[in-house]
Amino acid sequence: MLTKAEIQRVRSLREKKHREELGLFVIEGEKVVSELLAANYHFSEIYATDDWTDPSALAEGIAAPPRPHVVRISADEMARASHFPTPSSVLAVGRIRHEALPPNALNQGLSLALDGVQDAGNVGTLLRVAEWFALDRVLLSADCADLFHQKVINASMGSFARVRVHTVDLPAVLEELNHVPVLGCDLTGKSVHTLDALDHAVLVVGSEGRGISGAVREHITEYVTVPRYGGAESLNAGIAAAIVCDNLRRLQ
Amino acid sequence: MLTKAEIQRVRSLREKKHREELGLFVIEGEKVVSELLAANYHFSEIYATDDWTDPSALAEGIAAPPRPHVVRISADEMARASHFPTPSSVLAVGRIRHEALPPNALNQGLSLALDGVQDAGNVGTLLRVAEWFALDRVLLSADCADLFHQKVINASMGSFARVRVHTVDLPAVLEELNHVPVLGCDLTGKSVHTLDALDHAVLVVGSEGRGISGAVREHITEYVTVPRYGGAESLNAGIAAAIVCDNLRRLQ
Repeated sequence: MLTKAEIQRVRSLREKKHREELGLFVIEGEKVVSELLAANYHFSEIYATDDWTDPSALAEGIAAPPRPHVVRISADEMARASHFPTPSSVLAVGRIRHEALPPNALNQGLSLALDGVQDAGNVGTLLRVAEWFALDRVLLSADCADLFHQKVINASMGSFARVRVHTVDLPAVLEELNHVPVLGCDLTGKSVHTLDALDHAVLVVGSEGRGISGAVREHITEYVTVPRYGGAESLNAGIAAAIVCDNLRRLQ
Repeated sequence: MLTKAEIQRVRSLREKKHREELGLFVIEGEKVVSELLAANYHFSEIYATDDWTDPSALAEGIAAPPRPHVVRISADEMARASHFPTPSSVLAVGRIRHEALPPNALNQGLSLALDGVQDAGNVGTLLRVAEWFALDRVLLSADCADLFHQKVINASMGSFARVRVHTVDLPAVLEELNHVPVLGCDLTGKSVHTLDALDHAVLVVGSEGRGISGAVREHITEYVTVPRYGGAESLNAGIAAAIVCDNLRRLQ
């Protein structure tokens, strides 16, 4: 059972402004909620209709992840709380946490920096790529799609809960770097097939429409590109970044 | 000006059944229509509101691609003909052409075969990847997302008009091959970093949920995988295929 005020609170989290005000975000859908529970993501509230079976209740021999009590609600309440025209059987609320970037963190390991990547699906895909290639962290500039947007979390396929992400002032953070290569993905860079092995580096992916911003370009030490053999105008940001990561990792 | 019957005909093309019956498909949006016109794609009908400016009318010194007369319609007519709640200023109708696969074609060059890839965005992305890496052709099994679905064409970013695509009975076509390697993208294959150079090959990408089908598996000569360094469960089909293509092309 949900009060009218509770339903309105959950619905309001569609908008970033309200998410920031309340420090909460919503995620809906059997698949994504299962993925995040499996990743031991700690939700603060879970609402479900009677159709929903808690996946951890089915897993034998696996300790149940920490979780709140599941509040059972009616299909009608779910329809009113949901952000979608076709609601699923489960809706979970999480607490927004912004993890500060520790000083000098970028001097160690491989970081992926997203500079104005505005498509939520692309941001989620890039989190998944970062996890696959075991990058040490992902940096988001303030004008990227909001990390707590449902589309970002869905597209990340659970990587949202496992990858370290920091929202930063990207030019200011790159300014502090100490002899760490900053590679920019660009159509006019050096071929990724000729890269040298790099233990520590920042790989920058720019926005879908206008590429890497002027303020970030000042800190790029080398542009890299995926060699093109045919006629397509560009590659999707997630694909280009994944190919660069594959080429970096094969050298290590 | 559009008659009620014409509006209904255009609207009906939302469904694959009607597209197949009429042999027509629809594409909407300034960006995608421009991309296809720039690729010299020959539409049979173009409807636009007064807001639409024909992009080729602006390009100086470039011969206008072949095209039908643009029929100007009102915003209200566009809203009724459009497949979307928020219609754009242009809607184009094209003729569905299924190009037969010439005999023995797969013995020459690199082919990308999609086996039950059901997400329209993934199919479009894979067309774009095929064009970037200059693959010779793309094969679609009959259970892939429909090539003439707007989402496929949109996601292909114009590659739809430039890549050779054949819808085929995939196991039957692979059965006919003569000493051509058939690589299957799989999580348990050999690392793509250890591939040998291949001038002629078919690369198979399976469905998002269940991978490569049993009937196609009988024809795979080698499974290949993108080495995983971190914890993500899988890579998106488009990303995995693009990384395999990058590794094949660097060897040539």
